[in-house]
Amino acid sequence: MRDLLPAEVELRDAATQEILAVYRTFGYQRIETPALESLRLLVGSDGGENEKLIFKVLKRGEDLDAALRSGGELAEHGLRFDLTVPLARYYAENHARLPDPLKAIQIGPVWRAERPQKGRFRQFTQCDIDVLGVASGVAEVELILATAEALTRLGLADLTVRVNDRRLLGAIARHCGFLESAQSGFFIAFDKLDKIGPEGVLSELRGDGADAAAVARFERLLPTLQKGGLSLDALPGLLGADVAAVGGVFESLAAILRTVNQAMPAGARVEFDPTLVRGMGYYTGTIFEATSPAYPSSIAGGGRYDKMIGRMINRDVPACGFSIGFERLIGMLTERAQVSGAPAAAGAGARRVAFLVDEQGDLTPALAASRALRAGGDQVSLQVKRKNLGKQLETLATHGFTAYATCEAGGTPIVKPLMRRGRD
Amino acid sequence: MRDLLPAEVELRDAATQEILAVYRTFGYQRIETPALESLRLLVGSDGGENEKLIFKVLKRGEDLDAALRSGGELAEHGLRFDLTVPLARYYAENHARLPDPLKAIQIGPVWRAERPQKGRFRQFTQCDIDVLGVASGVAEVELILATAEALTRLGLADLTVRVNDRRLLGAIARHCGFLESAQSGFFIAFDKLDKIGPEGVLSELRGDGADAAAVARFERLLPTLQKGGLSLDALPGLLGADVAAVGGVFESLAAILRTVNQAMPAGARVEFDPTLVRGMGYYTGTIFEATSPAYPSSIAGGGRYDKMIGRMINRDVPACGFSIGFERLIGMLTERAQVSGAPAAAGAGARRVAFLVDEQGDLTPALAASRALRAGGDQVSLQVKRKNLGKQLETLATHGFTAYATCEAGGTPIVKPLMRRGRD
Repeated sequence: MRDLLPAEVELRDAATQEILAVYRTFGYQRIETPALESLRLLVGSDGGENEKLIFKVLKRGEDLDAALRSGGELAEHGLRFDLTVPLARYYAENHARLPDPLKAIQIGPVWRAERPQKGRFRQFTQCDIDVLGVASGVAEVELILATAEALTRLGLADLTVRVNDRRLLGAIARHCGFLESAQSGFFIAFDKLDKIGPEGVLSELRGDGADAAAVARFERLLPTLQKGGLSLDALPGLLGADVAAVGGVFESLAAILRTVNQAMPAGARVEFDPTLVRGMGYYTGTIFEATSPAYPSSIAGGGRYDKMIGRMINRDVPACGFSIGFERLIGMLTERAQVSGAPAAAGAGARRVAFLVDEQGDLTPALAASRALRAGGDQVSLQVKRKNLGKQLETLATHGFTAYATCEAGGTPIVKPLMRRGRD
Repeated sequence: MRDLLPAEVELRDAATQEILAVYRTFGYQRIETPALESLRLLVGSDGGENEKLIFKVLKRGEDLDAALRSGGELAEHGLRFDLTVPLARYYAENHARLPDPLKAIQIGPVWRAERPQKGRFRQFTQCDIDVLGVASGVAEVELILATAEALTRLGLADLTVRVNDRRLLGAIARHCGFLESAQSGFFIAFDKLDKIGPEGVLSELRGDGADAAAVARFERLLPTLQKGGLSLDALPGLLGADVAAVGGVFESLAAILRTVNQAMPAGARVEFDPTLVRGMGYYTGTIFEATSPAYPSSIAGGGRYDKMIGRMINRDVPACGFSIGFERLIGMLTERAQVSGAPAAAGAGARRVAFLVDEQGDLTPALAASRALRAGGDQVSLQVKRKNLGKQLETLATHGFTAYATCEAGGTPIVKPLMRRGRD
C-alpha cells in the first residue's frame, strides 16, 4: 500500500472527474458499497485466484474468544477484492429501490494480499460501469462506447476494443472435441496464449491430461484463430453445426461489432478476437478488452455475467460490465506527462498564488485581497514570509505555485508570476 | 455499514465537489493514505476511545500459524479510525517530498466497530483540512475561514465557530487548584457540560476523587464561564497570573478572533467559548467547533496538535486541522431537501434523457442522435422500449429521468419532457 502525494492525487482526481463526466452523459449513476463484505459472499463468488488474496477482518470480543476456544473461524468479514461481487450483492439486496435497468458507476479501492512487486499494490482503485437488467446487446454497445469515449477523452489514441463471446469459445472447445467438464481447463490454458504462445498453451493442455485427439484438432485450428487470422463472418464456415448450436450468439455479436464501429469516437475501433478469453470464472457471454498500441497490456476489460445475481436471489438478472484498470491508466497518463513535459493533470488552469504575510502582522488586508483573487478564479494560500525570500520563492515554484502576492502599505495587492527553474 | 443508492451518492458527490472547490481556492491540496495502518501506530496515537474500536486485519499464512501456535498477536494492521493519525504518519514518512507548509485536504472513509445505532455507521466519511508546519495563527485563520466558506456555500446559514485554547483551559484548571496530574480528568468531565449540565460535571469530578477545594472553586467560576457569560477580554481579570503564565496565548487567540471575524463570509461568525473542550487527547492549543442553530450538534471540529508528529520523528512539527462531520452534513442537506422539496444535489442541471429503442432494431440512428444530445449537455441513456410504455415512462420519471426521446423513421430524434407525478 502506498501514500499518494498532492500531485499524484491531482492527476487521479482530474482523470476520475473526466471519466465520471463521460459516464454520466451516457446515463450511468454512481453507487457505493462498503469496503467490508461477508466472507461467505467473497469466497463463494467464482472470483478465481482473487479469493485466495482476501484480507480478513478479525472477529471481536466474545465472538473472537469463542472462535479461539473452539478452533472456529477467526473472521467473518473481508475487504472486497473487486467491485463486481459487491455490486451483485448490492443489486440483490436493493433492487426494489433501484432503477430497472440499473446503470451503475463504481469507482473505489479494492484490496488484494498480493506479493509486493513493481506496479502492484495491495490497495488499488477500480473504475467500473455495469448494466444490470438488460439481456440484449444494447448493454454491450453502450458499455463499449462509453468506455472508449472516456479513454479517448483522456488522450489514449488508436484504441482497439477486442470482443469475443464465451459461448463461441465453448463452441470451439466442443468442435475440437473437449468434453464439457474439460472446458474450464481449456479456457484457463487458452487465456495464456499472449504470455506463453501456442506451443505453451498446447503443452499445458497436454500436461493437464486433456484428450489428445482434441488437443491435436485444436492445434490445427489455432493458427486460423490467432489474431488477424479470422473474421467473425468466417466462423460458421469453420465451426459449422457447433456455431449453430449456440443459437443467436453469432448474429448478436456481429450486430454489436457493426453497431459499435459506426458510433465509435474518432480513432477507436472494435474488432472480433476469437482468442480473447479473460480470467474470471463468472463470465457467461460477451467478453471484451481495450488496448492502445503504445502500451503493452490492456487498459480495460469486462464482459457479461448473467448468472451471478441469480445465485443470490430466485431469478437470473442479466448483467454486463466494463472495468478500467485505473492504476494502469494513471501510470500511462503519468508516463505521457513526463515525456511531454506538460502538466499531467487537466483542468490545472487556475493560477496558484502564494500570498506572503508577516507572521505577527495584521492579516486583514491580505485576507481581503485573497478573497478578491479567489473570486477571480485564483487559488490563494497565505504563506508566512521567510527570511530568505529568494529561496522561499524557489521552493514555492517547485511545489506548483505559479504566482506570489504581497500587500503594499495601502492594502493593494501586487501579484507577480513565479517561474519554475529549468533543471540545471 | 451500508449501501448508497444513486441519489444518495449524487448528493454526496455534489457536496464533496463543492467543498473541494472551496478548499482548493484556499490553496489546500488533496492527499491520500491507505485504509490500513500498522496497529502499533493506531493504538499508540492518543486517539482516546477510538482505539478500542479498531477493526484488525488477520495475519496470513505462516505468520498466522506462528501466532496461533505461540498465542501471539493475530493481527498487525488495522483499518484507520480517523484521518489525523494517518496524516501524521504520512507527514513523518514523506515530508522531504512535500511542500512546507503542507496544506492537506483528506476526504475518505474511516472505520469504527461501534455498536449499531441510528445515525452511526461502522464505515463513514471524514472530510479534513490540516496545515502542517505553521506555528502561528495564520493556520487557524485560514482553516476557520475555509471551513466556514465551504459550509456557507452548502447553504448552512447563521454559522458560529466557537473557539477556545487548551492552554487557557489549563490555566482555568490551575486557577481552581487542580493538580497537573488531574488535568485530563478535569477536561473529560468539563467536556460533558452540554450533555450533563453543570451539576453533572461537578458530581463527576467529585466522584472521580478530585480535590474538593478545587471543585468548589470551579463551581463558583462555572456560571461566569458558561456560554455568553464571558468575553475573552474578561479572562485576564478573572484568572490573573494564571493567564499570564500561559504566555502569549491570550493575545494570539484574541488576534485570531478579531482577524477571522473581519473576513468571515456573510452570516458566519467566530466567538470565544471558554467551555469548549473537545474529546481528543492530542490537542495542544486552539480548539474549535462549528454549529448552525437549526441543528443540535456540531457540524465540524478541530484544533492544534503540535506534539503528534514529534512522537514519530525527531522534531516537533506544528499542526492544526478542521474536520467536517461529513455524514452529519449530508444528513442536514438531505433533511433540508426533503423539507423544501427541491433536489438535494446541486449541479443537477443537465437534462436526463431516456432514449427509447427497439431491442432488436438497428441502434445506429439512436446512437448518432444521442451523441448530438450529449454534445449539447444532456445525459442520455438508451433504454429498451417495453410493451407498457405508459408504465415505463412513469417509472423512468420516478428514477429521475426528465425527458424521453425516440427516433422517427428518418432518424430525427424527438425529445419530450417527462413529468414526475405528484403523490396521490
